[in-house]
Amino acid sequence: MYIHAVSHYLPSQVISNEHFTELNGLSSEWIIERTGIEERRKAAPGENTNTMTLDVVRALQAKTDLSTVDLIVGATYTPYDTIVSLAHEAQHELGIADIPVVSISTACSSFINAVEVVEGYFALNKATRALVIVSEHNTAYNNDKDTVSGHLWGDGAAAMLVTKERQSDSDFEIKALLTGGAAHTAKATTAVVMKPIDGGVVMPFGRDVFINACQYMPKASLQVLERCGLTLEDVDYVLPHQANLRISRNVMNTLNLPEEKLISNIQRYGNTGCAGCGIALSEQWDTFKKGEHIVITVFGGGYSYGAMLIEA
Amino acid sequence: MYIHAVSHYLPSQVISNEHFTELNGLSSEWIIERTGIEERRKAAPGENTNTMTLDVVRALQAKTDLSTVDLIVGATYTPYDTIVSLAHEAQHELGIADIPVVSISTACSSFINAVEVVEGYFALNKATRALVIVSEHNTAYNNDKDTVSGHLWGDGAAAMLVTKERQSDSDFEIKALLTGGAAHTAKATTAVVMKPIDGGVVMPFGRDVFINACQYMPKASLQVLERCGLTLEDVDYVLPHQANLRISRNVMNTLNLPEEKLISNIQRYGNTGCAGCGIALSEQWDTFKKGEHIVITVFGGGYSYGAMLIEA
Repeated sequence: MYIHAVSHYLPSQVISNEHFTELNGLSSEWIIERTGIEERRKAAPGENTNTMTLDVVRALQAKTDLSTVDLIVGATYTPYDTIVSLAHEAQHELGIADIPVVSISTACSSFINAVEVVEGYFALNKATRALVIVSEHNTAYNNDKDTVSGHLWGDGAAAMLVTKERQSDSDFEIKALLTGGAAHTAKATTAVVMKPIDGGVVMPFGRDVFINACQYMPKASLQVLERCGLTLEDVDYVLPHQANLRISRNVMNTLNLPEEKLISNIQRYGNTGCAGCGIALSEQWDTFKKGEHIVITVFGGGYSYGAMLIEA
Repeated sequence: MYIHAVSHYLPSQVISNEHFTELNGLSSEWIIERTGIEERRKAAPGENTNTMTLDVVRALQAKTDLSTVDLIVGATYTPYDTIVSLAHEAQHELGIADIPVVSISTACSSFINAVEVVEGYFALNKATRALVIVSEHNTAYNNDKDTVSGHLWGDGAAAMLVTKERQSDSDFEIKALLTGGAAHTAKATTAVVMKPIDGGVVMPFGRDVFINACQYMPKASLQVLERCGLTLEDVDYVLPHQANLRISRNVMNTLNLPEEKLISNIQRYGNTGCAGCGIALSEQWDTFKKGEHIVITVFGGGYSYGAMLIEA
């Protein structure tokens, strides 16, 4: 399984930390110290997860031919439309008839859940060229005035073409991936929630999210390395879910890897949900050298997690 | 792939057609003539897609052991919580650690999309015993006063245990299944929509939904029969997505099958979204005779569709 091309989209409006200082007195230093976030993007009126889907699909079309895509998997937990899902919107844009289209909603881990769904279709020989879209409109469901987590969220999207067979030398190989759930833990179903008609996105037990994210992302990373017969010495970069810079640094410490190997965009975009890793992969795509190994690892609300090892 | 057990849950409150007569003058005869719906269920305050998930999981546990479930796939387009999804909620209830959990949101076709995701995990040898949950809380997002489609919707949920290997003689075999998308058609992304923060569920182009549903469900049914080397003569029952009794009858006419072979619960429950086929399968489960063939076929907003042939 290979990643042939990746694209991303970020809304143009930048929301600085000072916005939250004005709203509720949180200083920029306080936000940066606790989260690493310096600014984040906010979708404009009229933008939403479906319009951002069109943006990333068109950006991906500029890089590669999508006319023979035979599977579309979308992912979001901040939907504009739960019936006309991201996958439907993308199919409509591409005008490809009668291919499987499915959208998933498994919180911040969905980037890797989506790729695992693709992996299943490939194993079934029901598809060979999959378009994966991750798109989040957190600000649509966020209360800026929430001093606990209102300052964390940002908007953005990414798309990638995943193929069963290698298309070119520059493709990245997905050498292994796994997902799991830790919803058996006590606070998994209450720590961070997103109730569309009952308060939007709130995080009453952020500390529990923090602890479990710091535990499961390193664990999943090691598992996926083991499945490939590789060790931490073989890892060139780690791209964790962009939830909090302190979590990312904690993951690197646990893995005993230097911060130079950490890929992070949360400073500029905040927590962009399941889109965060896709955006970072797209931004960094051209900087990876042939043969480098990147571990992508995710952890989300509801406590699902995953890891994926890719080789440039 | 086999269905070992199925359960369902329906809220106790019955909403009669007269409720809509009082609200906006639609007569019960008019509603029945156009949709077949005589009454539907409405979730009580405090009930939602996640509480109904717990209801169907507990009902399924009463029928079979779920302690060795190794994959959970949930589906809804009327979510209570998009972060703590149905699959997370079910994992929390079962207390099973570290299994893949994923929720999907592909409108009314999700019942079969979910089983196809399971099929992929089975093909990958990443799971062998999957819990599938479909749960809809349409009334949470519906405007009763909408004279176009307000009277269509009902609430309900179903769950089933799908296994890679046969567990008992009474298991139903899933002989083949397929899904597809028809979002390439002109009105696919506007005909029926569910925007959580912008008007809920509305159906501006119901006629277009009707036409496409009547076209794609028979087509998918024939395709799935062909894949099994079977013909319409081998079909004992057809269970279409429960959207409208006129659509279901049209599907039977197109397939040239008598109405005695139609399974329908829309008269009593309305359109329960992706839960409809699961509820009907659960209700009828004990009436099927060994060796009977049931075609389940679905069509939903965004215009994804599917069909599945099962043998009792």
